[in-house]
Amino acid sequence: MKADNFDERIRNLFEPRSVAIIGASREHSKIGYAVLKNILSGGYRGAIYPINPSGGEIEGIPVRRSIQEVDDEIDLAIITIPARFVFDSIQELCRVKVKNAIIISAGFSEIGNLEEERKITDYANEHGVRILGPNVFGIYSSASALNATFVAGDIPRGHLAMITQSGALGLTLVGQAAVERIGISAMVSVGNKSDIDESDLLAYLQGHDDTHVILLYIEGVRNGEKFIDALKTTSRVKPVVIIKSGRSQRGAMAAASHTGSLAGSDDLFDAIARQCGALRAESTKEAFNWCKFITCNPFPRGESTVIITNGGGAGVMATDACEKYAVPLYDDAQDLKQTFTPVIPTIGSAKNPVDVTGGATPANYNKAFDAALQSDPIDTIIGIYCENATFTADHLKTMVETNVERFRQNGKLLLFSLLGGEETDGYLVEARRRGVPVGDDVYDVVSTLGAVYRYCRYRNDAPDEDADATMDFAAIDKIVAQAVAAKRYFLLAHEAQKIMAIADITVPKSMNAPTLEAAMKAAESIGYPVVMKVISKDIIHKSDAGGIALDLVNSKEVVDAYEAIMRNCRKHVPHAVIEGVSLSEMVQPGVEMIIGARRDAIFGPTIMAGLGGIYVEVMKDVAFRALPLDRKEIQTMLKEVRSYPLLLGVRGEGMKDMDKLVDAIIKVGAIVRKCKGITDIEINPLVVYEKGMGAKAVDVRILLAKG
Amino acid sequence: MKADNFDERIRNLFEPRSVAIIGASREHSKIGYAVLKNILSGGYRGAIYPINPSGGEIEGIPVRRSIQEVDDEIDLAIITIPARFVFDSIQELCRVKVKNAIIISAGFSEIGNLEEERKITDYANEHGVRILGPNVFGIYSSASALNATFVAGDIPRGHLAMITQSGALGLTLVGQAAVERIGISAMVSVGNKSDIDESDLLAYLQGHDDTHVILLYIEGVRNGEKFIDALKTTSRVKPVVIIKSGRSQRGAMAAASHTGSLAGSDDLFDAIARQCGALRAESTKEAFNWCKFITCNPFPRGESTVIITNGGGAGVMATDACEKYAVPLYDDAQDLKQTFTPVIPTIGSAKNPVDVTGGATPANYNKAFDAALQSDPIDTIIGIYCENATFTADHLKTMVETNVERFRQNGKLLLFSLLGGEETDGYLVEARRRGVPVGDDVYDVVSTLGAVYRYCRYRNDAPDEDADATMDFAAIDKIVAQAVAAKRYFLLAHEAQKIMAIADITVPKSMNAPTLEAAMKAAESIGYPVVMKVISKDIIHKSDAGGIALDLVNSKEVVDAYEAIMRNCRKHVPHAVIEGVSLSEMVQPGVEMIIGARRDAIFGPTIMAGLGGIYVEVMKDVAFRALPLDRKEIQTMLKEVRSYPLLLGVRGEGMKDMDKLVDAIIKVGAIVRKCKGITDIEINPLVVYEKGMGAKAVDVRILLAKG
Repeated sequence: MKADNFDERIRNLFEPRSVAIIGASREHSKIGYAVLKNILSGGYRGAIYPINPSGGEIEGIPVRRSIQEVDDEIDLAIITIPARFVFDSIQELCRVKVKNAIIISAGFSEIGNLEEERKITDYANEHGVRILGPNVFGIYSSASALNATFVAGDIPRGHLAMITQSGALGLTLVGQAAVERIGISAMVSVGNKSDIDESDLLAYLQGHDDTHVILLYIEGVRNGEKFIDALKTTSRVKPVVIIKSGRSQRGAMAAASHTGSLAGSDDLFDAIARQCGALRAESTKEAFNWCKFITCNPFPRGESTVIITNGGGAGVMATDACEKYAVPLYDDAQDLKQTFTPVIPTIGSAKNPVDVTGGATPANYNKAFDAALQSDPIDTIIGIYCENATFTADHLKTMVETNVERFRQNGKLLLFSLLGGEETDGYLVEARRRGVPVGDDVYDVVSTLGAVYRYCRYRNDAPDEDADATMDFAAIDKIVAQAVAAKRYFLLAHEAQKIMAIADITVPKSMNAPTLEAAMKAAESIGYPVVMKVISKDIIHKSDAGGIALDLVNSKEVVDAYEAIMRNCRKHVPHAVIEGVSLSEMVQPGVEMIIGARRDAIFGPTIMAGLGGIYVEVMKDVAFRALPLDRKEIQTMLKEVRSYPLLLGVRGEGMKDMDKLVDAIIKVGAIVRKCKGITDIEINPLVVYEKGMGAKAVDVRILLAKG
Repeated sequence: MKADNFDERIRNLFEPRSVAIIGASREHSKIGYAVLKNILSGGYRGAIYPINPSGGEIEGIPVRRSIQEVDDEIDLAIITIPARFVFDSIQELCRVKVKNAIIISAGFSEIGNLEEERKITDYANEHGVRILGPNVFGIYSSASALNATFVAGDIPRGHLAMITQSGALGLTLVGQAAVERIGISAMVSVGNKSDIDESDLLAYLQGHDDTHVILLYIEGVRNGEKFIDALKTTSRVKPVVIIKSGRSQRGAMAAASHTGSLAGSDDLFDAIARQCGALRAESTKEAFNWCKFITCNPFPRGESTVIITNGGGAGVMATDACEKYAVPLYDDAQDLKQTFTPVIPTIGSAKNPVDVTGGATPANYNKAFDAALQSDPIDTIIGIYCENATFTADHLKTMVETNVERFRQNGKLLLFSLLGGEETDGYLVEARRRGVPVGDDVYDVVSTLGAVYRYCRYRNDAPDEDADATMDFAAIDKIVAQAVAAKRYFLLAHEAQKIMAIADITVPKSMNAPTLEAAMKAAESIGYPVVMKVISKDIIHKSDAGGIALDLVNSKEVVDAYEAIMRNCRKHVPHAVIEGVSLSEMVQPGVEMIIGARRDAIFGPTIMAGLGGIYVEVMKDVAFRALPLDRKEIQTMLKEVRSYPLLLGVRGEGMKDMDKLVDAIIKVGAIVRKCKGITDIEINPLVVYEKGMGAKAVDVRILLAKG
């Protein structure tokens, strides 16, 4: 399950046997002091070497004047000196062969000083040293009890690992984790990501037993293919919760100006996160709710969910929330009735939401929970409690916690939404801190459950083999090479059609005819009806020049059309050199789809599919994925398209030829993956016919890589 | 500004000079005790008459054995006796001419006992008594210091009025208001709404000076037209925040089974709420955030917003949130640079979000806030603070509160999002309770700002006159009457076309021809190209029978087509009686829209417009409104349609004939409003051409009211 590109030195970053603090200081206001102090008070068990030219002692530890004075292998060096001294320091660290260096110092690419940053990282990498940073607050690792950060206060040990691209936000995340009483297993600030990035860290954390969930705050991704790989393999083992800002166009601008990294298209990022099993939260609050739940609770055994409430209105709100977050409500009316009618008051409701009524006592709730516990088809209960005079705070606590525990022991899940005033709120705050699955809003609780279900769905759904297509890729490369040799960075229509032929994707039959006689022969060979278009480099707007004739049904109409086109074109563009006409079959109507594969600058080969036609950009009804992907995932992608029902057949139409559509997606994807000279293939429309009747790529645009 | 249907007796409900408690009790566990106790301890200044056949005294007040013993006018009677005794009690109350009765007792329509409820309410209404309830927890009104509820604990006085349909949720709302330290001006539980409903209460509350904002929890609406009217007029005076559960299909089912009221189509409700200036919140938490802000802060003077942050990542998240909640960010780059560059650190950013950098001190923040305060174009600042060692809790408090106050004094708005650990969190909780505009998540803060802006937009945007159309409605009624006389509840194509002619909405030219000769004449008169279709009651699927010929361009083609159609149809449906053929003009392509007007069972006349064509239900690209509406609102509605750009003209096409489209919407709306016999008119497609070229109603379906 370990990512292929796992570097043992990343383990060394989290579990160093020795650390040096470059710029260790005895001045309490300095970062060089704070880091050393944290390492000491955190209980790190390895060797600690403070380095400072002034020598002496700090906190009872002797200070070396330079790294050369250390008579030991240094696994990790932490650099806290000003930016202008960092390169010199890195050169020295390379000489003594440290394994990793963390550059806490700021003043590099984040303020435009990319050159210095590159120089440092390139030098370090060439000498076998890996760099975390610059512009970070350090690393905390429970595996070696190492708190090599300047974060004030103790970091409580636990099961949440955090990776953050923003230092300031990272520090608030630590603070919020403390407020929420969420223990930390590891925390790394990646800053400018000049070398080590979140993918490297995920590769380590996926094998780190103490880490049960990983929270990732990112603004942009540099190496998307590596990131996708790390995310996919990590999500197989444990959940990764992502907060990615820059959702909006404006937010993406702000992110780009802040970190110098590209935020990329958010739709694409969103689709890829889902494809990789990652859980993307909207806000830090939502992310913490999810992480907290995951660190304190087992995964659910199934998704069949029942709401039990003492307030009808709150039950309805929970139902709305379940739809929003795709939490499936158990709805076997017969079984629900049998299960709950005997245990709820007569004026209650045994439908889902089950209403134990406003007068429900703890005993009423307990009976309903008992029934749910004993019902085999029910996996999860959302318990809703609206504050009620029949309950004391003690009743509430006992009712909540006894039942949560009983459900847990039986492999089932019980979560609570507690709505009320001071008393309920007081219990809620205290219970949350102890990890009891309670929330103060039905939406929060259901959002958490939805995220956990989504994750389990990913993990339980073993991936199929990646869909792939074989074809004569070399022949495609040859066509591309010829175009590039002619300094063209796009393919002409006939070249694109040749590639479609190689990929065995059907295009409308088409032939060129230099003369009327040839045109008549071509029409016969294609079969009526046909479309005729003038061929001339001098006529850009064929329609305006009267250079197009549609729906020609017999040879007489071909003759008439040919003469009319020649007459029209000569009149409209007198100087035009006319090479002849093209004839092609009239494409019969079907469902118009678009398929677009492109080599994304960040994420590598990606694919888009959706509703095609000339209004693609208006309708924006498309879905994205990173390549490669399996057939099941292609189906999932198509289902995300709003007009998916058109493919199933609406208004009495039959099912469309889904196989051919999926094949075309796989083939187009394979070409972009294998033929590096091609950056973009877009088929629009791909007209898809009834099942078994195939699909036709009416228009194909292929763009080539420059240089 | 008072709703036309305001009933002075509703004022009496909130401001009674005397109250009687039917079923007053000295047993502390009884509702009849709790209500009396609350009235006494709430400081009600009017006369109080506990009624109980056992007589005696409760809490020092003499108890009358029956209402007849009271020698005073009773403004309000509160009934707490079991359901089976309520009708008798109501009869007595009618005899002594009480003005209003609140039936707290449950056991009526909410458990299926609709008959008894109707009997009681009908009787009361006939005798001039209005009913609140049954199945409610009572009323609290600050105007008369009346707490006639069984809610435990004091209700803190303030400026939020709450109306709730769900008792249990209503009680939790009171509790949550207490936790949030939001004072209450009025609170009413409407329960089964057998008589008095939220519209009646809004009519009173809009004139109640102490009420600054109204929070409405509803599950379903009974009289939609009255509700729309009340909502519109109230929103002109003060904001109405709505929580309506039953958003999801499943939630709507749950709501219907719970309250016996219809939840209606949520899309329609959502559109109507927006149209009426109401602020619909998703969750109770969101609603309270909005209400809290509104009760504690003035409305903003404008919408030009700048984010000032010490954390770049948090700034980007706030930017995302601003896009989500339609908060416009000020983006005059030149002016932003001039304003902020002099006052922020050199490594900061003077773009919006303005980044004062992670090391920012209180002084740095103050300087940036000063600059924003002095900048004329900036109306609002979202201040973001990520916990930072340079700040103590006192610094934070001073920085936040001094600046909030200075902004307020200058007619500007400053809100804070405070992200951090224990210390920040501690201040946050305390400051929120005091009404300082601070939140712990950027999304919450921006959602609040978005809601306030939305409300101000509604209030500042004076409504135009309702668009109306004049036409010969009597002629339409006559066509309808004829169809109804023939026991038909839909109009035939030619009848619908007659109505289009009366409304002056263009339809494709069309004529019927019993013979070939007539067909040829008709084609000439319509103008080529034409479409020919067989007319026969026996041929349902004209296409399948070969009964349709498209694109006939001359008389020869008309002859050929006529003969072919006759031949095909006779062959396919040998027994068919063929009445002739219809000829109609070939409709040229344009933007296909749908317009649907219907008399909604709940909301009365409503209108829908959007992308038309045969895949309307797949694309679901439509917007809704209640009728009547002004031209501006029609434009707003059209802009909500995703494919709106098609009307503006994309891909080099010109602007479409928006005037004709809007006219058609107004006309269709006017017909449904005026002609009560018609329940539905649907034009699909209405093909809209370039500006000045009109629109054509290709297919028109009209349904009639039954009985």
